[in-house]
Amino acid sequence: MKRTASTGIGVAVCMAMVVGMAAPEAFGQDTRRRRGAGQEVRPVDLTPEQVAQLTKVANDRRLNVDDLLAAAKTFMPSGRHDEYVLFSSGGQSGQVFAIGVPSMRLLRSIAVFTPESWQGYGFAGDNDPVLESLKINGRLVSWGDTHHPALSETKGEYDGDWLFIGDKANARVAVIDLRDWETKQIVKNPLTVSDHGAAFVTPNTEYVIEGGQYATVLGYGYAPPEEYQKHYRGMVTLWKFDRVRGRIDEANSFALELPPYWQDLADAGKGPSDGWIFINSFNVEMAAGGVERGNPPFEAGASKRDMDYLHIIDWRKAEAAFKAGKAKAINGFPVLMLDTLIADGIMYFAPEPKSPHGVDVTPNGQYMIVAGKLDPHVTVYSIDKIKAAIAGKKHSTKDAYGVPVLDFDAVVEAQVELGLGPLHTQFDDKGYAYTSLFLDSAVARWTLGGEYASMHKQTPWKLVTKTPVQYNIGHLAAAEGDTVSPDGKYLISMSKWAVDRFLTTGPLLPQNFQLLDISEGGTTMPVIYDMPLGVGEPHYAQMIKADKLKSWKVYPEIGWNPHTQRLDPRAPKKGDEGVTRDGSRVLVKMTAVRSHFFPEHVEVNEGDVVTWRITAIESAQDATHGFCIGGYNINLSLEPGEFVEFTFTADRPGTYPFYCTEFCSALHLEMMGYLHVKPRSLGGGE
Amino acid sequence: MKRTASTGIGVAVCMAMVVGMAAPEAFGQDTRRRRGAGQEVRPVDLTPEQVAQLTKVANDRRLNVDDLLAAAKTFMPSGRHDEYVLFSSGGQSGQVFAIGVPSMRLLRSIAVFTPESWQGYGFAGDNDPVLESLKINGRLVSWGDTHHPALSETKGEYDGDWLFIGDKANARVAVIDLRDWETKQIVKNPLTVSDHGAAFVTPNTEYVIEGGQYATVLGYGYAPPEEYQKHYRGMVTLWKFDRVRGRIDEANSFALELPPYWQDLADAGKGPSDGWIFINSFNVEMAAGGVERGNPPFEAGASKRDMDYLHIIDWRKAEAAFKAGKAKAINGFPVLMLDTLIADGIMYFAPEPKSPHGVDVTPNGQYMIVAGKLDPHVTVYSIDKIKAAIAGKKHSTKDAYGVPVLDFDAVVEAQVELGLGPLHTQFDDKGYAYTSLFLDSAVARWTLGGEYASMHKQTPWKLVTKTPVQYNIGHLAAAEGDTVSPDGKYLISMSKWAVDRFLTTGPLLPQNFQLLDISEGGTTMPVIYDMPLGVGEPHYAQMIKADKLKSWKVYPEIGWNPHTQRLDPRAPKKGDEGVTRDGSRVLVKMTAVRSHFFPEHVEVNEGDVVTWRITAIESAQDATHGFCIGGYNINLSLEPGEFVEFTFTADRPGTYPFYCTEFCSALHLEMMGYLHVKPRSLGGGE
Repeated sequence: MKRTASTGIGVAVCMAMVVGMAAPEAFGQDTRRRRGAGQEVRPVDLTPEQVAQLTKVANDRRLNVDDLLAAAKTFMPSGRHDEYVLFSSGGQSGQVFAIGVPSMRLLRSIAVFTPESWQGYGFAGDNDPVLESLKINGRLVSWGDTHHPALSETKGEYDGDWLFIGDKANARVAVIDLRDWETKQIVKNPLTVSDHGAAFVTPNTEYVIEGGQYATVLGYGYAPPEEYQKHYRGMVTLWKFDRVRGRIDEANSFALELPPYWQDLADAGKGPSDGWIFINSFNVEMAAGGVERGNPPFEAGASKRDMDYLHIIDWRKAEAAFKAGKAKAINGFPVLMLDTLIADGIMYFAPEPKSPHGVDVTPNGQYMIVAGKLDPHVTVYSIDKIKAAIAGKKHSTKDAYGVPVLDFDAVVEAQVELGLGPLHTQFDDKGYAYTSLFLDSAVARWTLGGEYASMHKQTPWKLVTKTPVQYNIGHLAAAEGDTVSPDGKYLISMSKWAVDRFLTTGPLLPQNFQLLDISEGGTTMPVIYDMPLGVGEPHYAQMIKADKLKSWKVYPEIGWNPHTQRLDPRAPKKGDEGVTRDGSRVLVKMTAVRSHFFPEHVEVNEGDVVTWRITAIESAQDATHGFCIGGYNINLSLEPGEFVEFTFTADRPGTYPFYCTEFCSALHLEMMGYLHVKPRSLGGGE
Repeated sequence: MKRTASTGIGVAVCMAMVVGMAAPEAFGQDTRRRRGAGQEVRPVDLTPEQVAQLTKVANDRRLNVDDLLAAAKTFMPSGRHDEYVLFSSGGQSGQVFAIGVPSMRLLRSIAVFTPESWQGYGFAGDNDPVLESLKINGRLVSWGDTHHPALSETKGEYDGDWLFIGDKANARVAVIDLRDWETKQIVKNPLTVSDHGAAFVTPNTEYVIEGGQYATVLGYGYAPPEEYQKHYRGMVTLWKFDRVRGRIDEANSFALELPPYWQDLADAGKGPSDGWIFINSFNVEMAAGGVERGNPPFEAGASKRDMDYLHIIDWRKAEAAFKAGKAKAINGFPVLMLDTLIADGIMYFAPEPKSPHGVDVTPNGQYMIVAGKLDPHVTVYSIDKIKAAIAGKKHSTKDAYGVPVLDFDAVVEAQVELGLGPLHTQFDDKGYAYTSLFLDSAVARWTLGGEYASMHKQTPWKLVTKTPVQYNIGHLAAAEGDTVSPDGKYLISMSKWAVDRFLTTGPLLPQNFQLLDISEGGTTMPVIYDMPLGVGEPHYAQMIKADKLKSWKVYPEIGWNPHTQRLDPRAPKKGDEGVTRDGSRVLVKMTAVRSHFFPEHVEVNEGDVVTWRITAIESAQDATHGFCIGGYNINLSLEPGEFVEFTFTADRPGTYPFYCTEFCSALHLEMMGYLHVKPRSLGGGE
């Protein structure tokens, strides 16, 4: 038997490994051409043999022709990129998920409100800026309930720069930078505990809208339930977005006091309705629950009246009032009170069929579609009629708090009967609207009126077809569906229950994102893919054309600080590495490069406060390292060029391996070192 | 304009909603037949029109015939279930991911070492049992680096009962119950800080094997790097598994002291090799690094010698020695020291080509395949030869610690040249082995010898073909690939770098799980699917036939405690609800059912310690509720029948909405209530 692992080959392989790994970009075009059969673009002209081959696979797997077509419409050959990215909320996961369309593959989770270790998000020792930003009144609230993502817009088009998302559970709004797909800012609403109508943006992202939901005593106040109508209030907050800084400008943000109805979803006007914000509400009954006292439960008490109120808000007037100093400070935050909203003509109500969910502005800005879950119709409001009604003072009643209620007949353009449980509406490029029907478990396609009639050439304001989905669809998302120019093509049914759709994963099941092909129009609208979503329970999503994104492949310079999005002067450079001490404070300057850390040993004393800086000296795409210290709850993701600093107290003596947690090369397992914490009993820390 | 949301319809819809939602099982068979075109089983016989239709889609999307075939082999019609489940480690995410094969859809994340809010894992207030189980020496270590999942086995077959997985970063092992897919136990290794070779099981799951990796001073001790050879040690721990209790039995577990080489992957023998454990190692050089002192870095220092040591351990002899009281306590844990291992003939070494990664036992238990990443061959050891060499004392040398080293020529059956960077090997039902080639970025198929030669009827111990993958494959996983009877059919290439394969998701990219169709044998082995994995960086996975799983659809009884897996007498029953007080301790007994909590108001005083019990009174599959309290960092997942108790101090006054965080019905938004924390200033908490 010959020993084959002899020096010659070993060294040659070792060299190939180390050198070869330094240029992974070389994997690009060449290998793709060589490997990716799917990259060929010669037209297919199926031979009888190929048809027979395909037929055999279909019969072996019990697929029918529709299945083969659906498969061909969604399959992505190796290396081919999806056409759209769906940015989906993650619900109680607290995150955002990015999904490729039409393949419906989960491309990445973006950590927002919940620490996620593989991204190094929230595991950078004491005073981690992520954890600090998640604190509410001094308490770490390390999860969120993300609901409605909003892509930043320029002239009503998604511009691919920023993504905003709200945390219903804790009334927070996050800002994600779509260059590096990382959360950059989290703002806590100082008025309310939880929200719902976040986030929505105005057509040039002047403001990020955060609507409330469950009324409370604004500013984290207290009042017993008996004082609900007197002391509880709703609110909507307009967060000013500063594009240059890429941050919400809290100092120039303000809120509006609203009656204690439960405000639901919102949308900003565009085109003729630009300058307006529309917010649904329910529980205008102001039911305060109390099933334990023999009262009707909220589910019944909040559904008694036929009509709730659509809130119609002139945000430019509101901004003017705020700038004119008319806001009152609550918990230090400026709030335009109801009397100001009424006196300045900032807000009007319009009746809307009971317990609506979505209010959605058509791409041309002309109509607002309200879908009331307890009414089988959608109700269409016209901005022209709304403006005329306001100008003509067509508000014969006021609500209990004095807000003028526009006459229903004066503002409504149409009502369209669709089916049971309509919730939310999206649009395409052919003049159709699409509404989710929760109880019917279906997507309805229907015709818009006005200028859209010339596009579809069918009877306006009329149901065209319904496609059944499985099951209980909440929101739906169409390609570029919230912009002034939707793309059509694809629509996602965000189905809430999966029941029998997938293998049983214990009592906790995934959701089901179903892809509908809406390219044909008319009565054709097949479901072509079922995607289980077993990482959270998404609510809403937006779908952007992938080529609008300007994602960074690596950080622009070596030593980049993602928190500040600039080069950090503290980032250790090659040659600067070392460990220095000032009393019991230790500073570690480290670099990371395939396949070692420098230094490899860090010796400290028990009780030392250690500040540790690492620069990933890599510029090749995907050459990511990790860095963890066992037992110390520290894990970083060191993406190419990234600089990270963390601080911790070396309070547990012993010898702790640190290592690279991302498989970075064939010698990845060797990319490690030791933190030696000398115990006090052996003279450490004296 | 007629107001359509009038009482009649509203009430009818409302009733339909509430009643209809109470029986979601009704969605099952009927709707599937009506909706799921893919459920038809009539043989496909494509008409010319259908072929033309398919060809048009293919050409529109630039698909070739191979793409169409791959699409047809992987597409799952709506409602059709995958044939296999791949349980994959989640790497630095700390979790386990369950993926359906062949559709490669992520079915569910199972939270293990990292709190995950959508599952309600680690967000149950103070003293949450999950967070308690994650503490190490009193510090919460709320993430893990999961590497190697191991399905429980009976007679060498996956039995579908349990799943084990190790945390490399913190040397922990978790036990997951595959009835409800939840983590039930986490044990911390008391000897070492980090591990690697976990988890692997013996053929009847007698023991769960946790091998180490980076040597340290056992028992969390300290020694400076100069004393590496003297005081640092490796280890392997054998955790006894108690099937009846479904828990690791720590009191009957023990460890073996090993030299300070870096032990890597392990495997348990089966059939003729049952009773043996095999563990690879590298850095037998005992390089201690120190690039900062001018020493070679670990990556070079640990790769100098041609040969490392395969550790060959007789676990039944070890168990006998442990039971005979020969173990020494280190940090309270019994350890069989090296001198005992040598004296009792418990451990032998065999030379293995340098820096190996995987050691994999063939299904018949006859051979151990070692893949050394710096050697282009795999080396095949024979259990018969090993036994004969031990019996015949064919160990002409010892290592530095006195362990007998079996003569290489005496124990090796074959060496097979495959290519650059072989790492890990899997098996099929045709006598082939499959080895990942990290540097070649390829999967190699090669022939086994011995009794396997009659299966494939080709030259044994010989490369058959290689399929390129994209890129840098680490582990691979074949259907039932670690059992005594692999299934063939499917193999997953766990490719580590994605570079250009998917849309750029910022500097942090997903991994790429590539599905290979291995059903044909010979030189045919195409990649048929690329799955991005953007939720962590998996290392190893095991693939089980889905029909072996015995997953619960709902909890067996209303009031079930998943931590104990039995009915909990504390679970509130319908009619028991209420709030009681004993001094400053408040007990809340609550039920949750579509669509309300009972009670809806909970009034406490600032500073009260609140114990809150909730029973989900639901028995329909997928009728899951959530429960959160805004600002208090509490979120539960209340699966059908589940009981949860949590405790917290009401230290922040105010009025806090609680609500259901899982979209459970059309009146889901109304499923809420208020926690009123009366401030001390208003007489609360006095």
